[in-house]
Amino acid sequence: MTTVDNGVNVQALLDAREVLRGAPEAAQFTWKASAKWENGVHSTATIKNFFGLGAEQSHKSETTFTADHPEVFAAEDHGITPIEYLLVGLASCLTAGVASVAQNRGIQLRSVESTVEGNHDIRGILGVDSDVRNGFNDVKVTFNIDADASKEEIEALVAQSQKRSAVYDALTNPTSVTVEVA
Amino acid sequence: MTTVDNGVNVQALLDAREVLRGAPEAAQFTWKASAKWENGVHSTATIKNFFGLGAEQSHKSETTFTADHPEVFAAEDHGITPIEYLLVGLASCLTAGVASVAQNRGIQLRSVESTVEGNHDIRGILGVDSDVRNGFNDVKVTFNIDADASKEEIEALVAQSQKRSAVYDALTNPTSVTVEVA
Repeated sequence: MTTVDNGVNVQALLDAREVLRGAPEAAQFTWKASAKWENGVHSTATIKNFFGLGAEQSHKSETTFTADHPEVFAAEDHGITPIEYLLVGLASCLTAGVASVAQNRGIQLRSVESTVEGNHDIRGILGVDSDVRNGFNDVKVTFNIDADASKEEIEALVAQSQKRSAVYDALTNPTSVTVEVA
Repeated sequence: MTTVDNGVNVQALLDAREVLRGAPEAAQFTWKASAKWENGVHSTATIKNFFGLGAEQSHKSETTFTADHPEVFAAEDHGITPIEYLLVGLASCLTAGVASVAQNRGIQLRSVESTVEGNHDIRGILGVDSDVRNGFNDVKVTFNIDADASKEEIEALVAQSQKRSAVYDALTNPTSVTVEVA
């Protein structure tokens, strides 16, 4: 018998599922970021703490992210654009899902790579045409997966990852976002 | 006369708006990321190139981002979670918008800080209850802005930023996302 090890502790996740079934309040998480304007369209955002399992939690380390716009937007390109952060989130969410589902199904992964492309008509954000939306027109993710499994099994892994992906849902379905001045 | 300088080249953006009005094909951008599974739910994503103004473009530098899950998810916490990347994108997009609109309206900013909170019922992604969505329940952004302007003018800056924000649109409205195996 071969032991499949993708590095995902699936038993802990299955156990958490059972515990949270009887304790929905513990499943209420709040993810937090704080951001600071630097200059121009350049800002930084810091992430450390979150709330979950009924208590304040924190990541092992605080991480700071830089966002800016490229020189073709007359900016200084200190970092990636805000909308590109959505692609990072999407790719990493689907990748984590593929690893988790593979572990649960006993499929050994050797490599998982993906490319994400977001098409964006910038006439929206520039106010050229109010019929053009501000966000992506559409997004395409393409996976290249090397695993001890058939093409059909690999496609099923990706489909199941998509079905349970937080970020895929956040992009494909509307979320209420309120913006206030303190 | 006071010269307002928030570091945003608003004239270049207004000029771009006029140019793109007559050249919609140049406004078609494609943002790109490539991601790689590391182990478990830990992955890295790299961003360097994009397409726009009818040609391949690139950021000054390539940037790599790490995503993982916290220890309370039985993971190793090498980096923030995928869904937290959405909060980074949202905060930085709205902040860039505030700076741009302030520049256009002749309002000098002194500081712009914000906190973003995304409420997330993790019973969705864990498959506890199929009536619970995978993504955020809702997101709240709170700005603290110090500027040479009235409270009403500051609120109007934030409202206009929201109206033209790529990431605010991407989160509040649905986007078509296709996921394929190569």
